Parts: sequence; C-alpha cells; structure tokens
Amino acid sequence: MIVAQTDVEINDVVAGAEYPVGHAALPVKDVGRLLLRCGDRPGLVAAVSTFLTRAGANIVSLDQHSTQPTGGTFFQRTIFHLPGLATARDGLEQDFAEQVGAPYGMDFRLTEAAIPKRLAIMASTEDHCLLDLLWRNRRGELDMSVVMVIGNHPDLADAVRPFGVPFLHVPAHKDIREKAEQRQLDLLRGNVDLMVLARYMQILTPQFLQQLDCPLINIHHSFLPAFIGAAPYRRAKERGVKLVGATAHYVTEDLDEGPIIEQDVVRVDHRHSVEDLTRLGADVERAVLSRAVLWHCEDRIIRYRNQTIVF
Amino acid sequence: MIVAQTDVEINDVVAGAEYPVGHAALPVKDVGRLLLRCGDRPGLVAAVSTFLTRAGANIVSLDQHSTQPTGGTFFQRTIFHLPGLATARDGLEQDFAEQVGAPYGMDFRLTEAAIPKRLAIMASTEDHCLLDLLWRNRRGELDMSVVMVIGNHPDLADAVRPFGVPFLHVPAHKDIREKAEQRQLDLLRGNVDLMVLARYMQILTPQFLQQLDCPLINIHHSFLPAFIGAAPYRRAKERGVKLVGATAHYVTEDLDEGPIIEQDVVRVDHRHSVEDLTRLGADVERAVLSRAVLWHCEDRIIRYRNQTIVF
Amino acid sequence: MIVAQTDVEINDVVAGAEYPVGHAALPVKDVGRLLLRCGDRPGLVAAVSTFLTRAGANIVSLDQHSTQPTGGTFFQRTIFHLPGLATARDGLEQDFAEQVGAPYGMDFRLTEAAIPKRLAIMASTEDHCLLDLLWRNRRGELDMSVVMVIGNHPDLADAVRPFGVPFLHVPAHKDIREKAEQRQLDLLRGNVDLMVLARYMQILTPQFLQQLDCPLINIHHSFLPAFIGAAPYRRAKERGVKLVGATAHYVTEDLDEGPIIEQDVVRVDHRHSVEDLTRLGADVERAVLSRAVLWHCEDRIIRYRNQTIVF
Amino acid sequence: MIVAQTDVEINDVVAGAEYPVGHAALPVKDVGRLLLRCGDRPGLVAAVSTFLTRAGANIVSLDQHSTQPTGGTFFQRTIFHLPGLATARDGLEQDFAEQVGAPYGMDFRLTEAAIPKRLAIMASTEDHCLLDLLWRNRRGELDMSVVMVIGNHPDLADAVRPFGVPFLHVPAHKDIREKAEQRQLDLLRGNVDLMVLARYMQILTPQFLQQLDCPLINIHHSFLPAFIGAAPYRRAKERGVKLVGATAHYVTEDLDEGPIIEQDVVRVDHRHSVEDLTRLGADVERAVLSRAVLWHCEDRIIRYRNQTIVF
Repeated sequence: MIVAQTDVEINDVVAGAEYPVGHAALPVKDVGRLLLRCGDRPGLVAAVSTFLTRAGANIVSLDQHSTQPTGGTFFQRTIFHLPGLATARDGLEQDFAEQVGAPYGMDFRLTEAAIPKRLAIMASTEDHCLLDLLWRNRRGELDMSVVMVIGNHPDLADAVRPFGVPFLHVPAHKDIREKAEQRQLDLLRGNVDLMVLARYMQILTPQFLQQLDCPLINIHHSFLPAFIGAAPYRRAKERGVKLVGATAHYVTEDLDEGPIIEQDVVRVDHRHSVEDLTRLGADVERAVLSRAVLWHCEDRIIRYRNQTIVF
Repeated sequence: MIVAQTDVEINDVVAGAEYPVGHAALPVKDVGRLLLRCGDRPGLVAAVSTFLTRAGANIVSLDQHSTQPTGGTFFQRTIFHLPGLATARDGLEQDFAEQVGAPYGMDFRLTEAAIPKRLAIMASTEDHCLLDLLWRNRRGELDMSVVMVIGNHPDLADAVRPFGVPFLHVPAHKDIREKAEQRQLDLLRGNVDLMVLARYMQILTPQFLQQLDCPLINIHHSFLPAFIGAAPYRRAKERGVKLVGATAHYVTEDLDEGPIIEQDVVRVDHRHSVEDLTRLGADVERAVLSRAVLWHCEDRIIRYRNQTIVF
Repeated sequence: MIVAQTDVEINDVVAGAEYPVGHAALPVKDVGRLLLRCGDRPGLVAAVSTFLTRAGANIVSLDQHSTQPTGGTFFQRTIFHLPGLATARDGLEQDFAEQVGAPYGMDFRLTEAAIPKRLAIMASTEDHCLLDLLWRNRRGELDMSVVMVIGNHPDLADAVRPFGVPFLHVPAHKDIREKAEQRQLDLLRGNVDLMVLARYMQILTPQFLQQLDCPLINIHHSFLPAFIGAAPYRRAKERGVKLVGATAHYVTEDLDEGPIIEQDVVRVDHRHSVEDLTRLGADVERAVLSRAVLWHCEDRIIRYRNQTIVF
Repeated sequence: MIVAQTDVEINDVVAGAEYPVGHAALPVKDVGRLLLRCGDRPGLVAAVSTFLTRAGANIVSLDQHSTQPTGGTFFQRTIFHLPGLATARDGLEQDFAEQVGAPYGMDFRLTEAAIPKRLAIMASTEDHCLLDLLWRNRRGELDMSVVMVIGNHPDLADAVRPFGVPFLHVPAHKDIREKAEQRQLDLLRGNVDLMVLARYMQILTPQFLQQLDCPLINIHHSFLPAFIGAAPYRRAKERGVKLVGATAHYVTEDLDEGPIIEQDVVRVDHRHSVEDLTRLGADVERAVLSRAVLWHCEDRIIRYRNQTIVF
C-alpha cells in the first residue's frame, strides 16, 4: 500500500502471514464445552474442575455467574482440552451426570467444538443480514455449517448460490401460512441445530416453533423494547430519536419479547430520512445478528428466564 | 508525561498555552444568531444573506434544513458578526421583520451571543447532573449564567454553594404540590430564560409549565421511548437489555413525550446489577444533559412538532 | 417477524414500502454541487447565493467553514436544484467564474449529482473492503459506477464477477513493479475519476500517482498516526492497546501520511489474538472505507493542506 | 419525568429505593481476592479451587487467561468469600504458598476487599480528572481512600478541600526538581498504595519512581501510541485526525510507554479548534482515568511484560 521513497516494502507474503483467513486460537479437535446451571452453593467450581482434571482434561477457561451474592442461580461455562474427546465423550457425560450433575442438581450440556452447528436461514427480500452471515462463514469466522436458505420470495437465490448453499423457495404469506409452515418443517426437522431469521418478514405460528424444536434467533430492526412491532424506522423518525438500533433475540411465542442476545445503535439526526435510517440501521442489524449467531455457535449463551447470560 | 531520560520536557507554561480555560472560537461581542422557520421556497438563503451583508454583517456560518425536497418547512440558523451589534440590534430586528420576515412569512428570533442565558436548575438528592453543569460552567464551557438552584430536599446545598450559586430549599412532594409550585414560581418568574430539571423527582403540573413560560429541559434515565415512566434501570435489568441510555428532552404536558434533544447509551451485560446500571447510566445522564444545555444556550435547537433540529 | 397471537401482521408489501432499495432523498436530475475555496472576507455567502438565485436555482443546502474567525481560508459546499442543469451547466460555470469566482479569487468546482463518479478498485487477496463496496453499490447506497477491479492476484475474480464488474488480473510485486504499473495505467488512464485501494498490498510509485492523475483513497488498518507502516495489528497486540482502528485517507507520496478522511475504532482486550484483532478490525476497515468513498462520490470532501473538510 | 395528567407519580421514596448511593454487590467483609501468575499446565484451576474450598471459602468468581493455547503464561483472579477472613488471612496465605504456590511456581498476591487502597493524587492546574476521582469516591463508586492531593501549583486547593481531603502545595518545576521530589517522597513514602497523576505536568525522575515503590497510574491526553509526548491535541489538529482519545497507563521509566490500562476516544471534525479538542478530550480523560483507578483498586489488573490483563 502506497508509494516508495521509504525502505518499507509491503510484501504480500508477509502480509499473508499477518492475516490467516480464519483464526485458530485453539485447534478445535479435542476441545469440549460444558455449560451448566444449578442453585448456587459452595464448592461448585472445585467440584467441576476436579472432575475434569481427574478425567485428564486441561481447563482452558471457566466463566461463572450468580444471580445473587448468595442463594441465587449459578451458571458456568467451561472450555477444556481432552485428548481423544470424540471417543471419550459419552462416558465423560455419563460420569459427570452421576458424580457432579446429580449431587448438585445441575442442568448441563456438553458439546464438542469440532462439531459445527447446522444452521438454516430464512429470509425475504432484504439481503444484508443473510449475506453477512454467509460471507463471514466463508471467511471461517463463524463456527457453523449453513445447510439451507429458505426464502418466501425467489429474489435472493442468485445471491445465495455462489456461496455453495442451497436456496429453497417456499412461498409464504398470510393466506397460505399453514401450508407454507408445513413445507418448511418438512425441510428443517432433524436437519438443523439453529434457525436464523435474517429479516424474514412473515409471522411464525406457535405450532411451528413447537414442532421445529430448535432455537431460533431473530433480528429486530429497533433497539427493543423501543418500537416493538412493525415499521420501527418510520416510528423512530416520527419520535425524533437521536440513535437507531437493532436487537438480536431468541424467538418465543411473544412477539419481539424473547431473550435479548445483543444490541447496538448508530447516531442519527434530523437530516436523516426514513430511508437513511433504514440504510444506517442495516449496518447495525447485520453486525448485531452476526455477533449473536457467532456467540450461539460457540455455546457462549445460557438462557435464564427472559434474559441471556453471554460468557 | 513523566520520567526524564529523554530530552522532552513538559513545561507548565507550554502546557498552559495548550489549554486555555474555556474556548473562545470567536469573541462573542458583536456576534449575532438568527434562527428562522418558514415554508420552503426558492430564494430564502439569498434573501437572508443579502440582507445581512447589506446591513454590514459578515456571515460566519449558516445551516439550513428542509423537511421535504420541495414544499416542506424550512429552518435556518445564521451566525454573523456585526460591529456594534448591541446598539444596532433593535433596528436590525425591525428591518429584518419588514424586509424579509414578513414577505416570506417567517417565524424568527435574533439573539446576541454576548448575552448568556439565565438558568435555574431544579434537583432532588442526586448530584451528578447538577454538579456536571455547575462544573462545566465554572470552566467556561457553557455559555450561561446559573441564577439559582432549587432543591426539594436540602441535601445538595453544600455541594452547590462553593460554586457561588444560591441554593434554595423549597420542600415539595405530592401533598403540598400546589403550594410548592407557587413558591417556585415566585422565585423563577421573570428571572430565568431556561429551566433545567437535573434529576428532579417531582411531577410538575401543566399550570406550572404555563405560568413559568420558559423552556424546560429534563433528563430521563432511559433511552426513550424505551422505559417511559418510573424505575427505568430496574425495568432495563428485568428486560435484559444490553445497552442502557439517557435522554434529554424538552418538557411538555405529556410525561416523557417531549421533543428529544440528545440521547446516548452505554454497554452493559448480565453481570451488572440494577445498582451498576444506575452508576453507569449516571455518567451517560450527565453527559447527555450537559450537551443538551450547551446546545440550547448556543441557540442551536429549533423545535418542530415533537422533534428537534439541532444545528 | 414472528409468532401470531397478536393482531399485528407483518405484511411484506408494507415492509417493502418501508425499505425502498436505495434512498432517493432528492431526485438527482437537475441537482448541482458547487465546491469552492478562497480567502475569507465578508459577503461571500451572499454573493454565491444571490448568483444562484438569479440563475434560477433553488439552494438546497449550504455548508461553510473558515479556518480562522477572521482572515483565514473559507470553504463552501452548496447543493442546488436548477431545472435543465445538464444543458445550462457550461454557461453557468462560465458566468460564475466571471461574476463571482474571479472577483473573490476562488478555486471552485461544479458537478452534477446525476453523473456518478467512475471508480476503479485495486485489491490483493483480502475481500472484505472490496465486497462491501460492490455490495453497497448494488444496493444503490453509493453514487458511483465501478468500471473495473484490478487484482495483483487472481483470487478475488469469482467474488467480483457476479456483481457484473470486470475483474482484471495484473500480476504485481516488487520485481516487476515498473511493468505492472504500466499495464495498470494503460487500463485506467482516462477511464476513472477515483481509484480506491481496498487492501491492495503493493507500493505504488510517485510516477504512477502523477500519471494516473485522479484522487486515490486508501484504507490503512490502524488508527493513524499510530502504527504507520506494515503489520499494524501485530504491533497493536505487542503494545497492548485497548482499541484497534482503521483510517481512510487520500494517497500522497508520503506513506500513510495523506489527508485523513475517516477513522473509527473497536474495543479489544487481552484475550484477543492478532488474528482476532485482524478479524475485528476488518469490520472497521470496510465501514470506514465505504463511508470515505460515499463522501467522496457525493462531493462532500475538500482537501486543505494535509487535512480534509468533510461537509 | 414530569407533569401530572397521568396517574404515574414519581415518589422520592421509590426513586430513592432505586438509587442507593454506592452499590454493594457483595458485602466486602470476608471477601478475598487472589491474583496469581505462573507457567501454564494442566490442573491449575482445580488445584486453586480445591485449596480454597477445603479452606472453607466459597468461590464467587474466577477469571483466567493464558498467553498461548499451551505452554504460555497463566493468569488467574479468584474472588472468594471466607467467614473470618481478616483473622484467617495470614495462615491462609502461608498455606497457599506451601501447598499450591510453591509446587506450581506461582507469583501470587492475596488481598482483602475490605481494606481500601490508600491513594495519593498529584495534579497541576487542570481540575477535571482530579475532581472526577474525588466525586466518584464521595459517591462510593471507587473502593479507595484518598489520603492526600499534592499540587505543584496552589490553584486546586479550594476545589479539593470541600471533599475532606488534605491538599498539599509542593512547588515543582525543572529547576527545583530534586528538592521537590524529596519533599514529595517525605509525604508519600509508606503512606500510599497507589499514586495517580491526574494531569500532573511535571516529569518524574527514575529515582523518584524507585524510591516511591508503589504503582503509579498516569493519564495521557492522546490515544497512545499516537502523539506520544507534549501537546497531543495541537498535533492531533495538525494531523487532521477524526477521533481524539486518552490513555491511562502505568508509569515506567520510559515516557508514555508504560503498560496501557484503558483507552477511549471521541469523534471530532474539521470545525473543532485545538481548544475544542482539549474540551472534548477532557471528558474522555476523566472517564478513562476513573475506570483505570477503579479497576486497580478492585485488583482487576495483572501486568505482563508491557501489557495489562484486566479481568
């Protein structure tokens, strides 16, 4: 980059060395993640870490949170390295359940970093959130496998397919909702670990959510709980706010009321039209959704009531 | 900064030269500010600038805004320099009204930068917003004169008086509201150009607003329109938001619904208690309120419907 | 977005109405932009606005800046609407030069908003800045026409061509610099109004800059003037900074020393490896470069010494 | 926040309940903090947590960091609750050294949250950083005891004394440096756990640093490593940067080169004079310094080479 005259030479090879595509902090093989939740009491950290150490694992990191100084709910995420994890996993899980989980009354989940989440994305006509996820995944930033994109419009097919991901057009609107959801479920059930709504502009029924039986993440184009519902940018303009934002949240049966994963904002002023807010907000939407999906895929999020703990 | 071994010497005099207390972009003497609003039509900028040039003024800056590409409402703020402004002002105002204001159907206001706004501040027991205003004013950052602080509790008297500003204790709560507001009005009427509510925790009646007859700026401890009303930090914690904010707005008869002047936010997470949100939010509150007051005192704000244009 | 149970229905058509692709604040036909610079003196704003009004133009907006309260350099950007601008432009330019430009000693430039800048982009192997520009342009966010992408590696051809933009592979490295620059100049000369270096990792010679004879914008992956030169993320990690940033600047003969157009940063901490800084920084790089290119294409930037005024 | 007409009533008592002055996440009595550093190897977390659990402590939180996936340096901060800590501490420290510290080759430090750090602040004529520290401490936000303020000018005495903190005037400039430092050391030695330079504009000699023998935190008024040395705001203006910042760092013998604790920035543009940058930067300086001091007083910071790990 730019103009000799100095002796500094920017060599492509050196630059390449600085920027490996994808970042490999730790080889994911043999890395396990243990998430747990239980009533808080003394000895929890020691019990878990002693169990893992005796099992031959090295604890890489360990985050905890308690809702109260004493007597609250306790959460922990432990990352560990255990040679031969893939083979040892089932036994490890059973031993942990017996020796630690049961005595302490824990809910827990054990995952392998080497097994990426299988993801489906639903979208309508807006491409910014969808393309940012696909692009980051191609760069190796997101630890996931996108198994399909379902669009209720055909518009985004040409943008999706160069990423090597199947695009499936399932027309959906109010009048054919039942049939559309049935077709979507036929495609999804058993095939996905996470569903992402990347500006998908159709309502989903509680029946769909129950039958899909995997987490859903949605991006809402406002700083919730401000501007719940439709047309948030228009309402933001009318109210004259000085920041607009976006919110990524898990989908529950209550519209825009699910647990918030991530939010961010951008500064606006009186000169910005609704179209400007939409354009500036799109940048926030794609950044917020990508962070939420990354954190979910890295098993960083524990849900608690209507909130999230993000380690 | 620190530690010899190099030849760099940090001399107090040099440093002093770098940091004059208060910044004097333009000597305020002879500087006028013209704010106007009218229906948009061709020739407005030329009419105003030609009038000012013929009057012997030099235009320092000129900002405009139209609500629509054509046919909307037009706003302009003009800063100009006119030797002898104090003497010439009345004539200038009359001439402008006749030659420009009337033909174009303008609302306008002409102010002198050399005349600081007279400010009263009302507070309860929280000191952060109040002290930030008093401290910035002492540094010369805010172009205003604080004529009194009214507290409905005596707690803040000792913090206020070292700034050389009178502190007046007017007890106020629900049961004595009418009497309290009467005493406040007796102190304020005719004496202030702007009233600032610096975390004043009492409701004001529409009668008070009407009789006071000057603008009021309030700081609300949430990112409006999220968490309108009481206890916003507690409700923010319950909703699990990832940012908390503050909003400075003009006070109207509708609770927390007046025109927004400025907003900002700070990042929070699951580890933060309601007390943490309150502490982190306090920093945002004082920053946002100070900016709003600064902009008002510099005549940067034009109200339009329930919005503000901030030049 | 999501889950019935309420009566709110998110209709695709309504949503479409909220999000027109591209924002058309003002129909660009007949919109002109006048940028000027001269010694500051009274009457400048009036002279320009009166000229335009007499010529039948409606002034849409008008920004000014002076480097000193008095006696400095004056800059102005005026947006106006003049029916039939395309036909009238040459005469208008000549009249302005005679009646205003010459008497006031102005440098000025008149452009038509309807004529997009012709852009060439040079890149190496990193795709994030390049794709963000191409994608924003396809959405209609950037007022420009990308006439070619030149890569010194073939890697990005498949990513570029689906946007309908020609990708030209011109191998370049230290040993074949002269020949490579000659081939680049053959492609570029006369064909481009702006050249963008989107993480192009080769040095360009002063001869190339002189012969190309159009502005160049570069993105540097640090918060200049910190970490000038090679490997800024590695050096940022070594220094232990708590924010990393990016800088878009015009290219001059001095490495990384040209006028800064835009900068931004992102928070990092001790847990982030050099690879993490690279990944987080990439998001800042693409955002900063896209804003800089947008502002240049909208004729918002005036260069002054080694600085920029961005209206 | 205001104006009846609704039934919402803002009751001072309710509001008071929402805002206790100071936040008491955990009663600090009986809370211990264990910071440690050693070569990374399996079993470290288990060894520490088992030791603490057997000693009767409940682990409240536990943060770790390794510089490498394997074979790097390991850092851990453990917060625990142990009834009777004050009495048990010496024995606990000795037992830990024998049973864990020595076998694993650890550097470690054990502190009691109930014992606030004793702080001295040095300042010159600028009040913003100094007052923010004193004000936050009065509110109960900072876990520290300010034992004295030393000024090389008398200017700030009246601002300091209302906080109940002694102000000591020790004239200091280049020509009397040796004598001034001797007087400062006489006041400080043995009396302070942390020294804060709150815009103290004198160089300190390596001899002073060695003899003082406690950590020093300085606030530099730029985003280091940009604008090392004198007059950073003037140089920022000359370079035309679009953000200015501040950096809190530990003081070492190398000017402005010590380990960075915290940094932040604020957006500026061509309209801002050096005085404006100074004013806007002051807000960043006080925020950054206050965060750095808070983190130090909470034993959140571990130094490693020329970097900091902030848990």
